[in-house]
Amino acid sequence: MTATSLAHPVLADLAGRLPALRLLTEPSDLEHYGRDWTRRWMPAPLAVALPASVEEVQAIVCWANEHRIYVVPSGGRTGLSGGAVAANGELVLSLERMNRVLGFDAVDRTLTVQAGISLQAVHDAARAHGLIYPVDFAARGSCSIGGNIATNAGGIRVIRYGNTREWIAGLTVVAGNGERLDLNRGLIKNSSGYDLRQLMIGSEGTLGVVVEATLKLTEPPPASQVMLLALPDMAALMQVFALFRVKLNLQAFEFFTDVALKHVLAHGAQRAIDGEHSYYVVTEFDADEDAALAVFEHGAEQGWISDGVIAQSEAQAAALWRLREGITESLAPHRPYKNDISLRISALPVFLQEIQALLGREYPQAEVVWFGHIGDGNLHINVLKPEGLSDADFIAQCEHVTKLLADTLQRHGGSISAEHGIGLVKKAYLGSTRSEAEIALMRGVKQVFDPKGLLNPGKVF
Amino acid sequence: MTATSLAHPVLADLAGRLPALRLLTEPSDLEHYGRDWTRRWMPAPLAVALPASVEEVQAIVCWANEHRIYVVPSGGRTGLSGGAVAANGELVLSLERMNRVLGFDAVDRTLTVQAGISLQAVHDAARAHGLIYPVDFAARGSCSIGGNIATNAGGIRVIRYGNTREWIAGLTVVAGNGERLDLNRGLIKNSSGYDLRQLMIGSEGTLGVVVEATLKLTEPPPASQVMLLALPDMAALMQVFALFRVKLNLQAFEFFTDVALKHVLAHGAQRAIDGEHSYYVVTEFDADEDAALAVFEHGAEQGWISDGVIAQSEAQAAALWRLREGITESLAPHRPYKNDISLRISALPVFLQEIQALLGREYPQAEVVWFGHIGDGNLHINVLKPEGLSDADFIAQCEHVTKLLADTLQRHGGSISAEHGIGLVKKAYLGSTRSEAEIALMRGVKQVFDPKGLLNPGKVF
Repeated sequence: MTATSLAHPVLADLAGRLPALRLLTEPSDLEHYGRDWTRRWMPAPLAVALPASVEEVQAIVCWANEHRIYVVPSGGRTGLSGGAVAANGELVLSLERMNRVLGFDAVDRTLTVQAGISLQAVHDAARAHGLIYPVDFAARGSCSIGGNIATNAGGIRVIRYGNTREWIAGLTVVAGNGERLDLNRGLIKNSSGYDLRQLMIGSEGTLGVVVEATLKLTEPPPASQVMLLALPDMAALMQVFALFRVKLNLQAFEFFTDVALKHVLAHGAQRAIDGEHSYYVVTEFDADEDAALAVFEHGAEQGWISDGVIAQSEAQAAALWRLREGITESLAPHRPYKNDISLRISALPVFLQEIQALLGREYPQAEVVWFGHIGDGNLHINVLKPEGLSDADFIAQCEHVTKLLADTLQRHGGSISAEHGIGLVKKAYLGSTRSEAEIALMRGVKQVFDPKGLLNPGKVF
Repeated sequence: MTATSLAHPVLADLAGRLPALRLLTEPSDLEHYGRDWTRRWMPAPLAVALPASVEEVQAIVCWANEHRIYVVPSGGRTGLSGGAVAANGELVLSLERMNRVLGFDAVDRTLTVQAGISLQAVHDAARAHGLIYPVDFAARGSCSIGGNIATNAGGIRVIRYGNTREWIAGLTVVAGNGERLDLNRGLIKNSSGYDLRQLMIGSEGTLGVVVEATLKLTEPPPASQVMLLALPDMAALMQVFALFRVKLNLQAFEFFTDVALKHVLAHGAQRAIDGEHSYYVVTEFDADEDAALAVFEHGAEQGWISDGVIAQSEAQAAALWRLREGITESLAPHRPYKNDISLRISALPVFLQEIQALLGREYPQAEVVWFGHIGDGNLHINVLKPEGLSDADFIAQCEHVTKLLADTLQRHGGSISAEHGIGLVKKAYLGSTRSEAEIALMRGVKQVFDPKGLLNPGKVF
């Protein structure tokens, strides 16, 4: 990759308009900021802009409109659908420098932040005020809140707290047409025309650039218990979920398979249950150890639970959580092909039977790793690249199977993307989840917000 | 008013296409279906269609597109912003006959209903399965779920459960262009393109006709207590809210003034606290009588609470609730001009001072009745028509004041409509809550969904 020259006339114009703007054009920077965790596309942006204010973002978008330059909004680039990839001469608009807490309001219980702040920093800021921002997942240290909003990120506490959408009281956005929008401004009730804030959430940077957000906070939950369970099969998993959901006040109910466990143990996690079991669950619930033991006993008597441990300290709880949260990192060296699907919970049992047969048939050599958020109907199915197979051949094979998977999902009313977004990776399968009429309306909406089609081009549709 | 003839060529065409469609053209029907609770406009629809299926709704919207007939979607017509008024030769599309429960799923905890079902019937259906649909307000017996969705209705439990938006897992809509859209289909996590379901919620029938909805249900809360408090002033009200919010698990925290009490007592409610007090609160919280008494004592010691009672039976609880819920009905004979505003809770104290001065100055003769959902920042300010003033003069006077109110709201970041919607009544003030750029985008979105501008014409903007 070669560096873009700042003498490039359109970049010179941008630098002239915004003399204080940090603009990067070195090859290493273009590579770093041009890709995300998918690693499938060769990064090739024109340049990287790191604005420090909403006004700079607005000036960049206006400049892009004048020169018809494509713009890729960029947060922590932890996305798994290629939503932040810049591989075609786009300007990367990184929110990295806009990472501050702007304000906290104790009466409203809101935290106002710039979009580039990490989820972890949001958690810390909330905790400093005795409250929590309850959306949480493993990438918390690297991902940005702007990216979370762009994909309506879910994670491990959705069962209790819902997705990112539920926690956005206000959103400042620079729309694709260059207009600054201050959407909803922290109001709890506001029935005054279309809620464009909601439209922006989950739109993957194709309608506007999220620059600031007012986040709702809430009181910390009561002290909680963390439990690891070993289960014999998928049917037992659904039974145990139904049992635990009714009897305990669940915060999280996450499952993974023996294959996932093998990888996470090889990556340094500590085994917590001996023996061979097909499925595992890490669950967290408001503390009531007696109730927990009673439901555990009941599940064991029914043959649904083979073994289990309950954490006796915060360190043990963290060790149990690591078995689930370390999976993604432990799989990374195997260049997994990732599926992130969801269904209504009621549709899971029949779907799972069909899909296990399908994957067994279609991936005879590849290792398939299942894990996810069973309580939200969200499954992550990771296919590991067999040794010796080229990246290109592996992806071609996976895309063939994903087509079959998408057809099955469509029959069962599921979604091809639960929380990763569509980006580039899932674009070919959008039609399995959304109808032609819906996609046509989405294109129409895109045209309204971004008439020249400059924001995150080629993503979603 | 004269009846429309079914021989009218476009109606004859509709009747020909849908021989089973119930079509009303009698003057009494046109009047009944052409107006809502605002009673400000003279109803004058072309006709009233009462479809019995999604297919009939779709055929009506397609017919309207061919003949360029305006269509007003119509639910329980309990709206207070004129969102369901048909005063200009529109076809009223009433969902009244589409009022059935279509399905319940115990695993997903969802209830799928037709849009014309009443909120009360939804409550009953949920309760029959041991669950609740927690959105609630006084019009429950008359309003329809479709109308609730069209205005993102709030009500008395928002403080615990949020607005209607939080409870919509799926939405079937016939868009203005005649397309049937099955939006989100009950999924908990679905990050696959723009969430058009969210856009539809609160769009007041201007983008599409809600025909079916899949509602999330939840477990009933623990047994609760209902308390009535008497308070000396607005400052005390804010203090008591802050205290109760921290110390009790609130389900509702509703306030009203002595003037509201006078009307509701005159309308048949039973006095529960003696003496003269400026403000009253009805609050409901998860039962912990000791904690409740402790916070009550603390509030009384601080001088924030003058008196209070706690319900000792369900009948007493209902009697206390009637003091709050009966207000709207008790005011109706006085032809009130209704404001439905919201602010961030933190903005309330200063705003309230300003607005009390403003209203005292601008309405020297009219009685002003305050009540609402202080915990959501939502205030209802009802101005009663003085005897002898004509309707037209009264409304002109109120609109002058509403302009001043809107300006004050704008300075404090509030909204001109918290839960009633914009409709016809608030249209002139939309610009106080939404920017020109936002309104331009809203018009663009409207154009995408309803290219000929036929759905609920003249409403919102």
